[in-house]
Formats: sequence, structure tokens, C-alpha cells
Amino acid sequence: MGRWEPDSRGRLQEAALALFAERGFDQVTAAEIAARAGLTERTFFRHFADKREVLFGGSELLRERILTGVTGAPATDGPLEVVAAGLAAAASMLGEFRRDLSLQRQAVIDANPELRERELAKLADYASEVAAALRRRGVGEPRATLAAEAGMAVLRTSLQRWASSPVERSLSAMVQESLGELRAVALGS
Amino acid sequence: MGRWEPDSRGRLQEAALALFAERGFDQVTAAEIAARAGLTERTFFRHFADKREVLFGGSELLRERILTGVTGAPATDGPLEVVAAGLAAAASMLGEFRRDLSLQRQAVIDANPELRERELAKLADYASEVAAALRRRGVGEPRATLAAEAGMAVLRTSLQRWASSPVERSLSAMVQESLGELRAVALGS
Repeated sequence: MGRWEPDSRGRLQEAALALFAERGFDQVTAAEIAARAGLTERTFFRHFADKREVLFGGSELLRERILTGVTGAPATDGPLEVVAAGLAAAASMLGEFRRDLSLQRQAVIDANPELRERELAKLADYASEVAAALRRRGVGEPRATLAAEAGMAVLRTSLQRWASSPVERSLSAMVQESLGELRAVALGS
Repeated sequence: MGRWEPDSRGRLQEAALALFAERGFDQVTAAEIAARAGLTERTFFRHFADKREVLFGGSELLRERILTGVTGAPATDGPLEVVAAGLAAAASMLGEFRRDLSLQRQAVIDANPELRERELAKLADYASEVAAALRRRGVGEPRATLAAEAGMAVLRTSLQRWASSPVERSLSAMVQESLGELRAVALGS
């Protein structure tokens, strides 16, 4: 490999997800991922601290986007509108990813209890930070936590539907639609 | 110890929670829990498969109660009313426990990332089973999953508020109240 490796990060992700799907996450090494991508192990570790980071690498950035969306919502917005602003920011980031890789990532996580628990913990962390941001805006409990957790349920279901939809649709539109579904549920329909 | 040990299960739970709080879950053995309760290790293992079961022992029964509540809801009920029937069944079971022990249990779980992930996975499992029950009643997706996950958020926040409330109130009433809060959130207030 030369020093210039176009989209080596993307190739490593693609190789890793294919190998995880074939053999299971626990059975795959960083060296094997690099070999499948036609890159060196050293290149792998320039992009990822470990193979888990292939799956969870964007978490910090996503958290920041959600919180920036939430804190930027107009002061007059109700709690669910504020959460919706955070979800819109998340959708605009996540919607840039390849749907096929998102779907593979979800399948790998669902097949491994430890990864699934980590994914759930990540979403629970986002929810508790969003709830804290709502409390700082004067929203009381349990309203702040309920709005934040319902919001994370909207994000999770929207991502799954977006990644597995037979026709390509925008993630942002699906998040909006799911928020409408949540409101309909709460209204009793 | 004689063979007749009144409330040995309760004494073991109390001893375990006290030790977990003092030293951290990972630093406590079954033998130490038994000794603190004034019972033998053998008695401990008659009641619990391991020390984790002290914290998660009622999970299967709770799952059954929730699903029985859900499947028993009138056919004309909307998705959130159906979920509410499951939550009412859960509240009537969990509301029988000692509030001080519930509070200690929550603190032990929150202090240990692995236990917290297990607790989240348990709630996610309940949610996916409740969503499946809703789909069998003809509720579509994502509505079924959103109703189920919002319901689990109601249960979790209600349990925390109930266990930590300075005055004793019924868990069932707090679940009802939280469902009202969820509706208010969805309506925009």
C-alpha cells in the first residue's frame, strides 16, 4: 500500500461489516479486516482504536449534534419540539451514511448481546443528556425524561425503517413521520 | 441456623443490597452475603442462582405480568391504553416491594455499567415483546414499537420516582400520572 489510500476508512468499514456478518463480531480480528480491505493493520489502527469503534465510532459526534440541535431550539418550543430539533440534527448527520452499511451494522449489533447492550446504553446516555438539557430549559420531571426517551425511540425506529426500506426515502422525513406516529399514539389512536 | 429460616430470601436480599452499596457489586461474594444475613452459603444458593439474581430475580415474573396485562386489555383499546394495562399489572406487582430496597437496587445498578446495560436490555426485551403483542392486535409499525418503548420509559421513571419519593405514594397512581405526562408531552405542552 502506498501512503495515499483513497477512502481507506470506508473500505475498512465495509470489510469489517462483511466479516462481522459472515463470522460474528467476536470471531474477527483487526488484521483480518485490514487484509479484506487490502490495507495494512497499521492503517486500520490509524482509523479505529479497535474493531468495536468501527460500529460505534460516530457516537461522540452524534451526541454533540443532538445536543446542539436541542440547545438551539427556540425558547418557546414545547419539550417534544425541542427533542425533535435534536432528532432533525441527528437525521441530517446519519442520513448521509450508506443505507446498506447502516442495515448491516444494525444486523451485526442485533446478533450480539454485548453489542446490543452497548447500543442501548449509548441511546440511554443520549436520552439522559437530552433530558438534562430540557430541565435546564425549565421542563420538569418526569416530563423531560419521557420526552427524551420517547425521542430516542423515534430515532431508533426511524433508523431501522430507513435502512431497511425497499425504496430510498430521506431519514429526516421518516423521523418527522415517526414523531407524528408518537403523537397519534399518545392521543389514543 | 436451623432448617426453618423465616424470610431468609428477604434477609439475603437486604444483606446483598447493603454489601453491594458499601463495596460495589463486583467486590461481594455469595458467601459474604450469606454471612451478613446470618445464613449459610447453601441457603443463599437455594434462593438465588448467583448474586446477579438478587437484582434480576423477578424479571421473568414481571415480563409475564406485563404481557398478561397487555393481552387482557379490551379489543377496543388504543395502543397506549393496551400498554397502560400492562404497566398497571407491573405496578401492582412491583408496588408490593419495599421502597427502600427498590431504591438501593436502583443505586447499585446505576453505579455499575454492566448491570445498567443488563437492566436496559431487560426493559428493551419487555418493549419488544409488548410491541409484538400490539402487532398481533393489528397495530402497525412504527406505532407498536413507539407505544411499547414509551410505556417502558413511563415504567422506569415511575419506579424511580416511587422509590425515591419522600412520602409514600402508590406506584400504580404514579404510573397513571406519568402516562398523563407522556400524553401532555405529545400534545406539545
